[in-house]
Amino acid sequence: MQESKNIAVVGSGLVGSLLAIYLRNRGHEVDVYDRRPDIRTIEFSGRSINLAMSLRGWLALEEVGIADEVKKLAIRMDKRAIHIPGKPLYFQPYGKEGEAIYSISRGVLNKKMIELAEKAGTRFIFESKVWDINLDEATIHTGKTENDARESRKYDCVFGADGAFSRVRHKMQRQSRFNYSQEFLKTGYKELTIPANRDGTHKLEKHSLHIWPRGEFMLIALPNLDGSFTCTLFMPFEGKNSFEMLDTEDKVQQFFEHHFPDVVEDIPSLLPEFFRNPTSALVTIRCFPWTYSDKVALVGDAAHAIVPFYGQGMNAGFEDIRMLNHLMNIHEDDWGTIFRQYEAGRKPNADAIAELSFRNFMEMSTKTADTGFLLRKKIENRFAEKHPDKWQPLYSRVTFSERPYAEALAEGDRQRAIMDRIMEIEDIEERWEDEEIEQEILALLEDTPLKVVNR
Amino acid sequence: MQESKNIAVVGSGLVGSLLAIYLRNRGHEVDVYDRRPDIRTIEFSGRSINLAMSLRGWLALEEVGIADEVKKLAIRMDKRAIHIPGKPLYFQPYGKEGEAIYSISRGVLNKKMIELAEKAGTRFIFESKVWDINLDEATIHTGKTENDARESRKYDCVFGADGAFSRVRHKMQRQSRFNYSQEFLKTGYKELTIPANRDGTHKLEKHSLHIWPRGEFMLIALPNLDGSFTCTLFMPFEGKNSFEMLDTEDKVQQFFEHHFPDVVEDIPSLLPEFFRNPTSALVTIRCFPWTYSDKVALVGDAAHAIVPFYGQGMNAGFEDIRMLNHLMNIHEDDWGTIFRQYEAGRKPNADAIAELSFRNFMEMSTKTADTGFLLRKKIENRFAEKHPDKWQPLYSRVTFSERPYAEALAEGDRQRAIMDRIMEIEDIEERWEDEEIEQEILALLEDTPLKVVNR
Repeated sequence: MQESKNIAVVGSGLVGSLLAIYLRNRGHEVDVYDRRPDIRTIEFSGRSINLAMSLRGWLALEEVGIADEVKKLAIRMDKRAIHIPGKPLYFQPYGKEGEAIYSISRGVLNKKMIELAEKAGTRFIFESKVWDINLDEATIHTGKTENDARESRKYDCVFGADGAFSRVRHKMQRQSRFNYSQEFLKTGYKELTIPANRDGTHKLEKHSLHIWPRGEFMLIALPNLDGSFTCTLFMPFEGKNSFEMLDTEDKVQQFFEHHFPDVVEDIPSLLPEFFRNPTSALVTIRCFPWTYSDKVALVGDAAHAIVPFYGQGMNAGFEDIRMLNHLMNIHEDDWGTIFRQYEAGRKPNADAIAELSFRNFMEMSTKTADTGFLLRKKIENRFAEKHPDKWQPLYSRVTFSERPYAEALAEGDRQRAIMDRIMEIEDIEERWEDEEIEQEILALLEDTPLKVVNR
Repeated sequence: MQESKNIAVVGSGLVGSLLAIYLRNRGHEVDVYDRRPDIRTIEFSGRSINLAMSLRGWLALEEVGIADEVKKLAIRMDKRAIHIPGKPLYFQPYGKEGEAIYSISRGVLNKKMIELAEKAGTRFIFESKVWDINLDEATIHTGKTENDARESRKYDCVFGADGAFSRVRHKMQRQSRFNYSQEFLKTGYKELTIPANRDGTHKLEKHSLHIWPRGEFMLIALPNLDGSFTCTLFMPFEGKNSFEMLDTEDKVQQFFEHHFPDVVEDIPSLLPEFFRNPTSALVTIRCFPWTYSDKVALVGDAAHAIVPFYGQGMNAGFEDIRMLNHLMNIHEDDWGTIFRQYEAGRKPNADAIAELSFRNFMEMSTKTADTGFLLRKKIENRFAEKHPDKWQPLYSRVTFSERPYAEALAEGDRQRAIMDRIMEIEDIEERWEDEEIEQEILALLEDTPLKVVNR
């Protein structure tokens, strides 16, 4: 019943490749353009944070039948491992028994996704930059360099999956009344490596996301299949403890020995990596509309780039594709309606996960080192176990459910208001397991309204 | 003591011309570029809202000795004249005795400012678009069209006074970590005209800003020297009462007769104007940083475009220039320091007036038609008159004082919180002049904290 369309996807990253597989499964002709060379032919590293695949990501892969294939590349992480100087390693489970997030190298996953998309019949055109796009015609103009003779090709529709600095969005931005914002954090990041032991085993506990929370800055480490860990140092660009200050090998060495004494030995190439790898910026990008007529749509980071502190960037992008697929099931060839409902449905959720991700830096870098915060988590978890119908912790709602992000944000605000009151109770440290506390939370739940904001 | 510099100003609008006068007074060589023809040689009309000059604007003109000259072009407006169907015309004073804002036609003022800048020795280069700018070198590349042979010229520094869609800012935007947002209202606007009577007098009360508040939309009219009024219709682009719906002459005529019966006869060219004049969009633009090294700085709308509902766009831009001048007095040739302090000092205030302007649409279009709101204003004004040291109404603080906008926003929020409580008092309609109410406000003032946000 559905007509086969000619569709261009700009960007061969994770979201673009997944979209190509979905579209091929629906019987469309799909060309994926990328300005970079085929990632399968090059060395990929130096400015990535390992991915943390969670439920939303897996559901999008399952629906198109590739979850099992991808799971082979992933390492289960069921807890945070929190490293505080002078204290024993502290393990904080992410969810209930059996719930976990999964560490995957971005490069490894991207290669696999392109391979799977190609197997599904997608045509990839690498090293071909989209210089311009006619939105009304869905015609794209490509070429290796700007001065090259350019090629033009008209499609039935075009998807912009070309990331935070999307060329497709750039073209849409020139319309009047296009809302757009880009907001950079004062914190940047740098990739470092903990290599495997000689026997290929991991130097740190394998099934954990390791965190060294230090307030304004933090180090994290996520496991890889080859026994190594990809580490990311998050730190302000300027100020007291900052990338700007660490401008000599001595200073870097001393900084790591002082702040990360338990791990500095495990990063043997610290100094060369620190000065070779770029210091990258972190940006939140919001825009609207995401679509143009029935011709053009933005997906993933091109529509909603977020900071990485909730591990939801890829998951949110994959969920875009799954939602598009559901709408295509309902509205078949009515692409105008599909696009309108897609942007209206996804935008409030994209805004919500942007906000949650922004807030989570504080939680990871500061609060995981705070005993009050850890007690708060214990009280919440205890209550949630007893009343799973009444309380799903915010992290679980974002990570282990497919309920809308906007709802998670609103529930999280409500729970925070309630827990603020609970934490004011005198001697809460001693009394937190008392029956009264449970009753008090139940009473507060009755009294505290839920506010879902649809901006 | 101060060295004479070669300075380029991009944009010959109100703020660019004023800056040129200030810089000439300090002994610098000043070239002002504009892509448009000299406004003095062309007919100017069709998409402007008359300006409302208030204290901040006048102070900036006085400091450079041109306030008297400009005052000749202005008409004093000491009140709002509120037109509600079936009710008598209601006059709401803007401030205390003697306080007023001043209506000036944008075109008339701009011509005068260019004339004054030229007289001060500024060189104007019209019909010369700045296509590119080298930020490190303060070199600008100009020409009539993009394909023309371009001219390049190096300056000591460059100011971007080129408005909301600034080319200079566009270049700064390409740097990493440049924060930027553009946010459009769903409301647009269209200019209309009430011509003068045959004897040159005004058809409506001359010394008022006339408002026809209708909730989602409103009409305003500001007086001109020639006896005419410049009217602006603000209305949603789409929806029930919207520009989209008014697509035939009949519909426009009926719409005006229905909603603005007391003024429709005074707009004899309603239909031709409605279909000839553009429907313009309203945008808030925020960005940071505003400067680049000691070479480039943004001023006025290029740094902070706001919606017009507080009448502060030009006033805020003029205040930028006055602040720059103060910093030049203090730091003389240290342009790096001048620029750092300028952007750090102005940014929180630009954000505050953006927020206040956004909120004021609701006040003008809806609340001025609301009896509860008018009572609230009466209570506030009565208290302010008795306790001028304790209560300056928000509108006065923005319009008739030079206290920072950020402080006005914070004071306004505090006053609103207090007045919300007062308006909850039973029978407040009867009791508002009682001694108790005054005492209650005094008590609430003690209890309500002031929160100045510096983002």
